[in-house]
Amino acid sequence: MPECSILSIGRELMLGFTVDTNAAWLATEISGLGYQMRNIRLIDDNGDDIVNAIKELTLKSDLLIITGGLGPTPDDLTREAIAEAADDELAYHPELFEKIEARFVQIGITISESNKKQAYLPESGRGLNNTCGTAPGVFCLINDCRVYAMPGVPREMKEMFRLSIVPELLEEGKGQVRAMKRLQLCGMGESRVGEVIKEINAECPKCEIGTTVHTGVITVRTMAYADSLAEAENIVNPATDKLRERFEDNVYGEEGVGLSEVIVKLLGDRGQKLSLAESCTGGLIAADIVSVAGASEVLIEGVVSYANQAKQNRLGVNEKTLINYGAVSQETVIEMARGSREFSKSDYAIAISGIAGPGGGSEEKPVGTTWIALDCEDGTYTLKKNLFYNREGNRRLGVNYSLDLLRRVINNQKLPEGVQLCQGVMQ
Amino acid sequence: MPECSILSIGRELMLGFTVDTNAAWLATEISGLGYQMRNIRLIDDNGDDIVNAIKELTLKSDLLIITGGLGPTPDDLTREAIAEAADDELAYHPELFEKIEARFVQIGITISESNKKQAYLPESGRGLNNTCGTAPGVFCLINDCRVYAMPGVPREMKEMFRLSIVPELLEEGKGQVRAMKRLQLCGMGESRVGEVIKEINAECPKCEIGTTVHTGVITVRTMAYADSLAEAENIVNPATDKLRERFEDNVYGEEGVGLSEVIVKLLGDRGQKLSLAESCTGGLIAADIVSVAGASEVLIEGVVSYANQAKQNRLGVNEKTLINYGAVSQETVIEMARGSREFSKSDYAIAISGIAGPGGGSEEKPVGTTWIALDCEDGTYTLKKNLFYNREGNRRLGVNYSLDLLRRVINNQKLPEGVQLCQGVMQ
Repeated sequence: MPECSILSIGRELMLGFTVDTNAAWLATEISGLGYQMRNIRLIDDNGDDIVNAIKELTLKSDLLIITGGLGPTPDDLTREAIAEAADDELAYHPELFEKIEARFVQIGITISESNKKQAYLPESGRGLNNTCGTAPGVFCLINDCRVYAMPGVPREMKEMFRLSIVPELLEEGKGQVRAMKRLQLCGMGESRVGEVIKEINAECPKCEIGTTVHTGVITVRTMAYADSLAEAENIVNPATDKLRERFEDNVYGEEGVGLSEVIVKLLGDRGQKLSLAESCTGGLIAADIVSVAGASEVLIEGVVSYANQAKQNRLGVNEKTLINYGAVSQETVIEMARGSREFSKSDYAIAISGIAGPGGGSEEKPVGTTWIALDCEDGTYTLKKNLFYNREGNRRLGVNYSLDLLRRVINNQKLPEGVQLCQGVMQ
Repeated sequence: MPECSILSIGRELMLGFTVDTNAAWLATEISGLGYQMRNIRLIDDNGDDIVNAIKELTLKSDLLIITGGLGPTPDDLTREAIAEAADDELAYHPELFEKIEARFVQIGITISESNKKQAYLPESGRGLNNTCGTAPGVFCLINDCRVYAMPGVPREMKEMFRLSIVPELLEEGKGQVRAMKRLQLCGMGESRVGEVIKEINAECPKCEIGTTVHTGVITVRTMAYADSLAEAENIVNPATDKLRERFEDNVYGEEGVGLSEVIVKLLGDRGQKLSLAESCTGGLIAADIVSVAGASEVLIEGVVSYANQAKQNRLGVNEKTLINYGAVSQETVIEMARGSREFSKSDYAIAISGIAGPGGGSEEKPVGTTWIALDCEDGTYTLKKNLFYNREGNRRLGVNYSLDLLRRVINNQKLPEGVQLCQGVMQ
């Protein structure tokens, strides 16, 4: 399999003020094209360091992807460094300058003398079109390694990679191709997921099966490499089918889909409406739903009933319920959910109230204690969770467990352990 | 200045499934301790690659920080690789195993045989205490370079770095020390900020002044290196004072503070209350406020009035206003804000309604058109913004511009261009 290295250039990266998300994005894309990722390096805006890194990595790799350092300022040294590593001169390309100039006209900004720099390329190289920015990319062959340099701005980089580089890499087509399938799970313990994977991997040893866990959501990733995509898929697909069967109702989606996307689609398909009553999550469930295009078909309203006053006045929670059981209780979330559904006339109302931390815990209700209620035609489902992250993490977990409960109820699937269905008045 | 390299190890990083936030965090901390960051490298869980990287980087650096690969599974090879790079055997430390075992007891999980592996250390090395996980860290001296290896879990890594490594690096104290001050700005154009920086940098040439921009918030960072912290601060502080003066009311805070933190503090100090009426931001303002500890003293409620039905029923927006002017209009946000403040009896009510995109735009109201209203004792302030990011970005910009308007009104500061104050009924 041909090998690829990534070189990310910039002072901001080196000082840690910018996290290098470009490299991670590129690594995923490039390994999907059948290259083995061997090195990811971050270095400073230092001419010698850049030249040395390019020389070293082109000797070790078949493909080198560089991001950053193509701007017009004196700090931007990538163009010069590529030329030096290629033992080449920089040559001015008037047709490139025209393109840059046209771009400036388009966005209504006057071009400055320093932008001329961006129209220079190593003599043996060529430019790569930038469809959403001014800096052209650079291609060059150094030590028999294909070198592509792109701007560091993620939006520009991604477009350039997709439009100008992917087609060339596919044409090269030296390597094996990867097939990958991802299953998204919620509501199943990590160790149990691990055991299932171990068993399936024993049955399908050609696959690589891995997991990532993110606030209650487990992604199970099955990959295989082969000479053709069809062949690789013939390894991955049966293994994924077996995993899907074993994970049962815990699979909520595939290929990186979010729980909120699944919910918006489920409700949208059914023409059903959702309303929300959030305390500890403070609007995060609503924000998550609204982040999905099409949310307006589905979400009527959310109430962030942070103060008890709002729980009473907006949702009709009884003052006595709050006094007798507290804001974080089964009784309160039931009244919140019912109040939300009644007022908004939604089909489903989710309510959540919990102690996100760091303060506010007690012996009886430690930090992390969280009650979720889902009111619908069937009655009111409730679920108690003891969350164990920090404030931010607990709120995210609360969002995911709430949405997971909803999708299980909509789909008539197995409910998480501990769910109760309350009809009529709680006593 | 002594030089530092960071080596991040893991298959997940190499495939791009995990973004290496550890390296960025460490780079910021370490460069603050007077080390110059020279290399950040990410490599695979591959024994030979790890050994080679350690050998190479220890020859180039005074300090090498490694994260990842200290777990109990067969993929975790960092311990073995350090020993090999140091030309050392691994030795079993029963006292380390006891600590690991105690940690398992504490979290109520049975220790497995594979955890024994974590009690091995290179013979010339020593263990580093892990206060919030099971894997001990490793210290070793290789090629005269101090090598520290830590687990890849960010929470465990950060604690170990602070408690076990920082004190040792400070004691070493070889290098120059960095002073840094950050100013947080909202409501000032990037190019104008750049011009001011250029002028101040000419007056204070010993400083390095840089910026990062994040959905409407600009961070201006002033740094200097010197032999002592006091000396470095003597360079940074006067420059920061000059910058602060020139940026005027656009500075909302310092040292990375968020707008929502500033708001919670401002309102908390005054004993004042806030309520929210969100449409396009869909709960993000509420979620942002609630993420601040102490929010419960300040936030009464939020209404995510996503459907027109909710704008009418929850906030009392007149049906005619919606029909005549539309949901995204000055008239509608005024009624939303007033309705929110009246119902909740808050001191300040923010309302926002906009077209976040990608769909929903028209010639008259293109994607990005956003109206913000702030109702308070003075009357109702309104602000129209034409936002230019994608859906997610526009919602974040909406949050920041809303909070920035609020903090300017509370502080009696200069209001952004275009703000109107409406008293009485709009016609």
